[in-house]
Amino acid sequence: MAVYTDITDDELAALLADFNLGAATSFKGVAEGVENSNFLLETETGRYFLTVYEKRVREEDLPFFLGLMQWLEQHGFPSARPIPDRNGQVLKRMRGKPCALVSFLSGLSVRRPGVAHCREAGDSLARLHLAGAGFPMRRENDLGQSSWSPMFSTLKAQAEGLKPGLAAVIEGDLARLAAGWPTGLPEGVIHADYFPDNVFFQAGKFAAAFDFYFACTDALAYDIAVALNAWCFEPDGSFNITSARALVAGYEARRPLSDAERSVLPVLAHGAAMRFFLTRLHDWGATPAGALVRPKDPLEYERKLAVHRSSPDLVLFGGGA
Amino acid sequence: MAVYTDITDDELAALLADFNLGAATSFKGVAEGVENSNFLLETETGRYFLTVYEKRVREEDLPFFLGLMQWLEQHGFPSARPIPDRNGQVLKRMRGKPCALVSFLSGLSVRRPGVAHCREAGDSLARLHLAGAGFPMRRENDLGQSSWSPMFSTLKAQAEGLKPGLAAVIEGDLARLAAGWPTGLPEGVIHADYFPDNVFFQAGKFAAAFDFYFACTDALAYDIAVALNAWCFEPDGSFNITSARALVAGYEARRPLSDAERSVLPVLAHGAAMRFFLTRLHDWGATPAGALVRPKDPLEYERKLAVHRSSPDLVLFGGGA
Repeated sequence: MAVYTDITDDELAALLADFNLGAATSFKGVAEGVENSNFLLETETGRYFLTVYEKRVREEDLPFFLGLMQWLEQHGFPSARPIPDRNGQVLKRMRGKPCALVSFLSGLSVRRPGVAHCREAGDSLARLHLAGAGFPMRRENDLGQSSWSPMFSTLKAQAEGLKPGLAAVIEGDLARLAAGWPTGLPEGVIHADYFPDNVFFQAGKFAAAFDFYFACTDALAYDIAVALNAWCFEPDGSFNITSARALVAGYEARRPLSDAERSVLPVLAHGAAMRFFLTRLHDWGATPAGALVRPKDPLEYERKLAVHRSSPDLVLFGGGA
Repeated sequence: MAVYTDITDDELAALLADFNLGAATSFKGVAEGVENSNFLLETETGRYFLTVYEKRVREEDLPFFLGLMQWLEQHGFPSARPIPDRNGQVLKRMRGKPCALVSFLSGLSVRRPGVAHCREAGDSLARLHLAGAGFPMRRENDLGQSSWSPMFSTLKAQAEGLKPGLAAVIEGDLARLAAGWPTGLPEGVIHADYFPDNVFFQAGKFAAAFDFYFACTDALAYDIAVALNAWCFEPDGSFNITSARALVAGYEARRPLSDAERSVLPVLAHGAAMRFFLTRLHDWGATPAGALVRPKDPLEYERKLAVHRSSPDLVLFGGGA
């Protein structure tokens, strides 16, 4: 949750004066999104979502994110559509910060995804990859494999503080991932953060995906690996192979994986667990003691790392039919 | 802002199973309300607001608050209507905490009220008092004048920390308020927290009032005094007599004040400033360093206290035609 930027009624009226949306009839800060400030806006013409981009999102990346959201919506993928102002601009400013208005999405996130949700997650992720094909912009994955060792070099003490001995274990993982990281896989636009809280369901069916602020150009199969970690672990830390099979089968029903892609899912899932472990470890250390908003627990991903380290074939069993 | 209680999709579905509102189509935690957790809920039948009551609200007071909200709505005052479940219950439970569903209110709060807003504030406050007449329940004002000296006895060090010498000044105020506090004024249901952020406007007109969780039975004129402090000070700390006149004139257009009520507005406004100074001073000290959610600044009300202390007639000039 995060509402870092406090917008007054006058500032909102000034923003809306640039649009053809009528006057505001309701405006509420929403406890959603860790990176940005989000507001639910109703005007005389409809419902919208206002996002004010806070410092973690780099302004030079916003044309990629907003362009992608426009592209996906135009190519039939259910996601929030950026709303252009009277001059066709989607990237606006408020209080000196970039912001954008997007269309409202209905739906609810599931907290504990079941097998059927995982199938929908895989199916919708393949839809996203297919809809993203041809998107003309490119953004490097700045949280990709090559970034992990440099990032960890500043986090060793934090890892030891979390669990004595952990720093050496992570360094072993990083060496293994660097040696075994696959290249030459089919690439395209990936979401890179396809977690249950970034997906809406309605009546048990996929309704929409959002929060494209980590999207980038990378191996499509890496996106599946991120999703396997995010959707297919049980609260007790065990990997649910039935859920993983459903996710991959849902994906393959729309976009079959090559043998090369399928065979590297274990190392991709190990790496994807590393990426989220490292950013959570960083955020955990960076949060002041006593803060009311707690960052996500890095230990959740430390446990997922351990699963992939000790049982690399688990994910393959999920992938095999 | 506060979302202390995290509700899952399954918990929400279990709550809605008790109601005739259909399934949820959208559910968002809202960064609104310091005391409770609030959620915007859409179902197949409409839009609602879910409030989960956190520890500051005493459960035994909830029947008064919810009963008052029902009463006001039935008596033509625009406010949120508690939604009964299939058994007619409005007070429900979630995660072991009391909660209630109320109807959605459109409108926006004004950040910097102008004279016209102040007139609407006075007018709507009188409407509230008239609509509340006859409400059969009673709740003492536990933040009334008799509570201030006991409350301050634990806050002297905090006051000195805020501003050296302040504790003695506050004790002087408290003695003066105790000696001069009026009795025998017309009583009834008061909102007791009629601030701009608890009132919605649409197109410059009063639309609805909400957050009745300090409502109680007390002198009606005390509610005007709270509102004068909340609506009629400029950001530079000066009291805007034009705004105050408009607020009182708006009120009197619906419910003329007796001479007795009008003559005690200065001491009531001084006391109302004390009440908010003390609770803010308390909350200020109780918040851990580094917390992302900052409590409201007690110095704002320390400055208002100083205005009333040095120029008690200011408010009277506001009240006189």
